[in-house]
Amino acid sequence: MGKVPRPPRGFRDFPPSLMILKLEVLSKIERVFQRYGFDPIDTPALEYWETLAGKYGEEAENRLIWRFQDPLSGRWYALRYDLTVPMARFVASNPGLQMPFKRYHIGKVWRHDEPQRGRFREFTQCDADIVGSPHPEADAEIVSLALDVMDEIGVGGVVVRVNDRRLMAGIFEEELGIEDPTPVYRVVDKLDKIGVDGVKGELAKLGLSEETIKKIMDIISLRGRPGEVLPEVSKRYGSNRRVTEAVSHLEEMLSLVDDDRVIIDLSLVRGLDYYTGPILEVVSERLPVGSIAGGGRYDGLIGLFSGREVPATGVSIGVDRIIDAGIEAGIFSVNRQTLTQVYIVVLDRGAYKYAWKAARLLRSSGLSVRIDLSRASGQVQRRKASRLGVAVIAFIGSREAESGTITLYSTRTGERVETKLEEAAGKVINLL
Amino acid sequence: MGKVPRPPRGFRDFPPSLMILKLEVLSKIERVFQRYGFDPIDTPALEYWETLAGKYGEEAENRLIWRFQDPLSGRWYALRYDLTVPMARFVASNPGLQMPFKRYHIGKVWRHDEPQRGRFREFTQCDADIVGSPHPEADAEIVSLALDVMDEIGVGGVVVRVNDRRLMAGIFEEELGIEDPTPVYRVVDKLDKIGVDGVKGELAKLGLSEETIKKIMDIISLRGRPGEVLPEVSKRYGSNRRVTEAVSHLEEMLSLVDDDRVIIDLSLVRGLDYYTGPILEVVSERLPVGSIAGGGRYDGLIGLFSGREVPATGVSIGVDRIIDAGIEAGIFSVNRQTLTQVYIVVLDRGAYKYAWKAARLLRSSGLSVRIDLSRASGQVQRRKASRLGVAVIAFIGSREAESGTITLYSTRTGERVETKLEEAAGKVINLL
Repeated sequence: MGKVPRPPRGFRDFPPSLMILKLEVLSKIERVFQRYGFDPIDTPALEYWETLAGKYGEEAENRLIWRFQDPLSGRWYALRYDLTVPMARFVASNPGLQMPFKRYHIGKVWRHDEPQRGRFREFTQCDADIVGSPHPEADAEIVSLALDVMDEIGVGGVVVRVNDRRLMAGIFEEELGIEDPTPVYRVVDKLDKIGVDGVKGELAKLGLSEETIKKIMDIISLRGRPGEVLPEVSKRYGSNRRVTEAVSHLEEMLSLVDDDRVIIDLSLVRGLDYYTGPILEVVSERLPVGSIAGGGRYDGLIGLFSGREVPATGVSIGVDRIIDAGIEAGIFSVNRQTLTQVYIVVLDRGAYKYAWKAARLLRSSGLSVRIDLSRASGQVQRRKASRLGVAVIAFIGSREAESGTITLYSTRTGERVETKLEEAAGKVINLL
Repeated sequence: MGKVPRPPRGFRDFPPSLMILKLEVLSKIERVFQRYGFDPIDTPALEYWETLAGKYGEEAENRLIWRFQDPLSGRWYALRYDLTVPMARFVASNPGLQMPFKRYHIGKVWRHDEPQRGRFREFTQCDADIVGSPHPEADAEIVSLALDVMDEIGVGGVVVRVNDRRLMAGIFEEELGIEDPTPVYRVVDKLDKIGVDGVKGELAKLGLSEETIKKIMDIISLRGRPGEVLPEVSKRYGSNRRVTEAVSHLEEMLSLVDDDRVIIDLSLVRGLDYYTGPILEVVSERLPVGSIAGGGRYDGLIGLFSGREVPATGVSIGVDRIIDAGIEAGIFSVNRQTLTQVYIVVLDRGAYKYAWKAARLLRSSGLSVRIDLSRASGQVQRRKASRLGVAVIAFIGSREAESGTITLYSTRTGERVETKLEEAAGKVINLL
């Protein structure tokens, strides 16, 4: 084979440098999830096609879900498109769960998107969801959690944009009398991309009256502190039952969160069909890549599986996007090629068994240790150790083997010390 | 929908109780991998079909690999069947890797097996592989690693069965003159299931002479300490170059491992095509489910992708099988339903904001805290907390809110104490 083999188009490998960083970020996210009392679950990568069908909306359904027919059984399957619908199916599959049920799930999802810079067909999501509570405090917890995650992983300049599907339905459908608001939402969703005039133009193309367009533009330009925006919304549409319901839910929710980084933004749409209440997106001015987390309330989704309505709310953290953008922004670095702390250079083949014993001893103290497996010269071994960037290079030759010692060299300070094998672990820890 | 929805046949969900256990076991395995100086990588769940084709052998190729045609592009893909072939493709995709390259990979694999008790179509593998070293010390490290993993996760009664593909080829093909040994290996592989007489019968059906069958039975009955079995093999077939090569490789490798739990077993076959040198399987008498880890040397595999031969050796730990069998054997328990340590019962709605603040404070000390999201009565909240099995139930009502305190109750000891909020975290830690 002449050419270099590649992962499938739109997919990627994570080499150690990237994976070490990713595991570190994931572990921080997971710790925040756990601090909030979320417990882990896992569901299959595959679901039956009919499990995912009819949940996400037209674009996902027709184009973005990776569906396939198993040639052996003829059955249609789909790779999971997110972690939310499988979780809803899980809740319906396990009717005995104690409510509220708080679960987190870290896993891959697949989307049949056209690959482009920064957009992959496989990526990791970190989801936390609360099932069984219809109350604003559940949504508040989701927002606080998202903010704490960003703090924990060191992403600054964060804003949480919040809207509510009931506000949108109350205003667009009931007050403005738009029968099918989906195309309107789709246009509004492009506000950041195409600007006010672009939105106006596209709304006109949908056949809306100038007056309606003016009202829409008035509404979607509302953006700011909850204490300013929500009273304004009430003033305009306070006679609408869904609007008042949403406003009081958002007020209660955001008074608990009590964080200046939360704004109400009536132009926020979010693409998925299943939301029914508050929706949210996290953006960061440090990471100019659109939303880095998103979520909301979806009180109808579980009922599609179980037949009885179960309220639910949650958030999904786009960890791969955060890492990619964070590396570019200098928030994260990928300069760590290895977790190895000690690299044992074996200077004489005759000392190999002794070096092996030394490696075992250091490992049993919890240290991460490589021992030479190349049989290269001492110099070459040492160069390999340096290139990996380990903190300590250990040398073992016949002298060390005879005297029961090990020579340790700190690549940071240049310090070199020969020590008894039994004391080596403590000494290494000092040199790290 | 009347019926309870399910994951696809042969797939399963992991509820929190099982997932908490699994994450604990995985984290132990990962720590051992890291102590040995292996670094993490990740590769896609999907590969192009042609990447997996021709690597595993007939059964995998025709039946077990989950392959499918993408209806949108017409391209054939496959879900990864193991982590080894994708790793070999990864190494070929990254020609600049420094050798030896030591990587671990923990991830799902998919097999289109007929589902049955304990056999799933999706399961997690934990692989550690050394690429770029042809030397016995690399294989020795793999065996030591496998043993240390079993010790770390508490699986006792372990035996590592070792054989070598060169021994098999030297004896079966060259000495016994069997042209196509694959069907013979397939019969030998069933020794544990169908016994000596069964194997004899099936070998006869293959048309082998009585004399050849006798020799085969003699060979595959060799099982025991390396120091006993290897000299015996040399005595019988020491004139064969491949046999002597294998024997001296195994001797050097196992003298480094130096562990009584390692045996040479000439009936060990392993199903995969790509092995070229030592092969190994880990079994445990505590877990009567066949092999719980397996691996070996596959010096030809990477070359199929890169065109230049790169030696490699590794092991794959079947963590799901270990957990399932370990639960049955009483090695593991699934009685932990939650990672939550503190459950805050809110006795008065008026105290909710104060309780929220308390939850934030405890969480900032690293504690895992749930706060009521149900608005149920204090009694019902308390029952929920008890059922979850948290260590500490905290009560907050108007009295605590007014006096800046929190009442903590240890579900283990029955101790109850009211403490200032600022001192609550320390107090909780004492009660855990």
